[in-house]
Amino acid sequence: YHNMKHGHLSTKDLADFIRERATIEEAYSKSMTKLAKSVNNYTQLGTFVPVWDIFKTSTEKLASCHSDLVRRLQELIKEVHKYGDEQIKTYKKTKEDVSGTLEAVQNIQSITQALQKSKENYSAKCVEQERLKKEGATQREVDKAAVKSKKATDTYKLYVEKYAAVKSVFEQKMTETAQKFQDIEETHLLRMKEIIESLSNTIKEIHLQIGEVHEEFINNMTNTTVESLIQKFAESKGTGKERPGPIEFEECNKSSAVEGIKPRKRKPFGLSGIMKKEKDTESVERSLNQLLSRAKQTRLGENEFNLLPIKPEKGNEK
Amino acid sequence: YHNMKHGHLSTKDLADFIRERATIEEAYSKSMTKLAKSVNNYTQLGTFVPVWDIFKTSTEKLASCHSDLVRRLQELIKEVHKYGDEQIKTYKKTKEDVSGTLEAVQNIQSITQALQKSKENYSAKCVEQERLKKEGATQREVDKAAVKSKKATDTYKLYVEKYAAVKSVFEQKMTETAQKFQDIEETHLLRMKEIIESLSNTIKEIHLQIGEVHEEFINNMTNTTVESLIQKFAESKGTGKERPGPIEFEECNKSSAVEGIKPRKRKPFGLSGIMKKEKDTESVERSLNQLLSRAKQTRLGENEFNLLPIKPEKGNEK
Repeated sequence: YHNMKHGHLSTKDLADFIRERATIEEAYSKSMTKLAKSVNNYTQLGTFVPVWDIFKTSTEKLASCHSDLVRRLQELIKEVHKYGDEQIKTYKKTKEDVSGTLEAVQNIQSITQALQKSKENYSAKCVEQERLKKEGATQREVDKAAVKSKKATDTYKLYVEKYAAVKSVFEQKMTETAQKFQDIEETHLLRMKEIIESLSNTIKEIHLQIGEVHEEFINNMTNTTVESLIQKFAESKGTGKERPGPIEFEECNKSSAVEGIKPRKRKPFGLSGIMKKEKDTESVERSLNQLLSRAKQTRLGENEFNLLPIKPEKGNEK
Repeated sequence: YHNMKHGHLSTKDLADFIRERATIEEAYSKSMTKLAKSVNNYTQLGTFVPVWDIFKTSTEKLASCHSDLVRRLQELIKEVHKYGDEQIKTYKKTKEDVSGTLEAVQNIQSITQALQKSKENYSAKCVEQERLKKEGATQREVDKAAVKSKKATDTYKLYVEKYAAVKSVFEQKMTETAQKFQDIEETHLLRMKEIIESLSNTIKEIHLQIGEVHEEFINNMTNTTVESLIQKFAESKGTGKERPGPIEFEECNKSSAVEGIKPRKRKPFGLSGIMKKEKDTESVERSLNQLLSRAKQTRLGENEFNLLPIKPEKGNEK
């Protein structure tokens, strides 16, 4: 009966264990979400930037796997609590069912004590009778002792018989009860094993999902080649694929002279790309980037490095 | 050049990311160790107790996997820092190497400005000359304008030639430098990819180890059958495999009567197992447990349930 109660303690312990595990997983998941967000604070410049997206996505997915685990562990805890409540009902019912056994136990205890006492009494009376005989006491005394001895013998024999009857009932009740407790214990352990199986299945599934997230990360990294990163960077920073042509002598347009000189927005020469903001410091960077990007693109298989002079666009000079 | 510096920032970011991940794993590992220890606080009574050992071992191993990960991530962070230091050296060296290119950039900037000005001047002088002609100015004025126009044309032509020369040097330097920066960028990205590969390999290995811990847990749970748990419990709580025999009437030993009655330690009857402490409350539990354990053992295949009466051991009665 005590062990049956320990079964309920084990159920509570299991719920505690799962709850604690869920708490750990939740903390881990939250930290992972924070880590994924911290990627936003990293430099958003340079060739490496697209790689952070891969890290971010992967870290978010890891966080999500662990929060899935938390959700499923919490469902499992509810199941464990429900089982714990069922256990208490079973215990109450069982306590009533085995009350007859408790009586049988008490009976055998009292009959055993009585039997022991009657045996001691019989033994004492028997020895007393012998002593009187040996010491040559009066016949009256010896007879009196013999009567007492006879009475003690009868009582002793009665208790031997009574004991046998009580023992038989005790054994039957105990066997039944032991069987009942064993059945309860088996059902309990089977239920606990089911819960643990559910727990390990959940953990195993999430573990597989985490493995998939890792695989995806590895694949994404494999697909993110050095070439593709440089290509992306060149495309975002580059000023065009064609090398600016030479600047040639342009004859003055004498016809326009009659209307006088109007300040016009004109496309300045062929090196427009790097000349637009020639007076601010950006121009150095820009021209470096422009040629840098062209050189990159060339190496990346774009072999149409245009070395032909580009004629000034006369149409725009009008 | 700026992008090259961003490469170093990315390296620092990567180190930060790995450090943060290591911190998360460390917290997780510590929580798992704590969870494994908390198992000690669970009830140490009942049939379920051996299962907690499986939980404890498994949780300790999980903690150990994650602390292994922490150790390896910390090693990786050292590697990343080392690489970061190497990067700075490369940058310093490169800055010196490309100083000639900066000069070429400045040259093309100033020549472009000069060319633009000379063209505007040429255009203005040319228009002025035409205007004077059309407006019928004096020959002297027209001649003067023609001289100025000729001079502006020569200057303009000179700058067109100069520009071509400077542009050629600029293009050569820029191509070389772009190639150098591209090489540096490629080497950098390759190194970053190597570090990330090392990171994902580590995570993958630990993930496999964690999977093994889960498998071991599942196997241990499968091997821990309900029968074996009940068997273990019965063995620890049981009082023996034989059912106590009946208590029979014992003839008084008259020969001992002569020496008088001495209080002797005698083996009390056959039900000794449950009678030893018959007056304390434990006896009820003990007798229950005794028969409970016997009933269990019977069901577990021990079919030698001894129903034969055990004779009181007369040898001990002497």
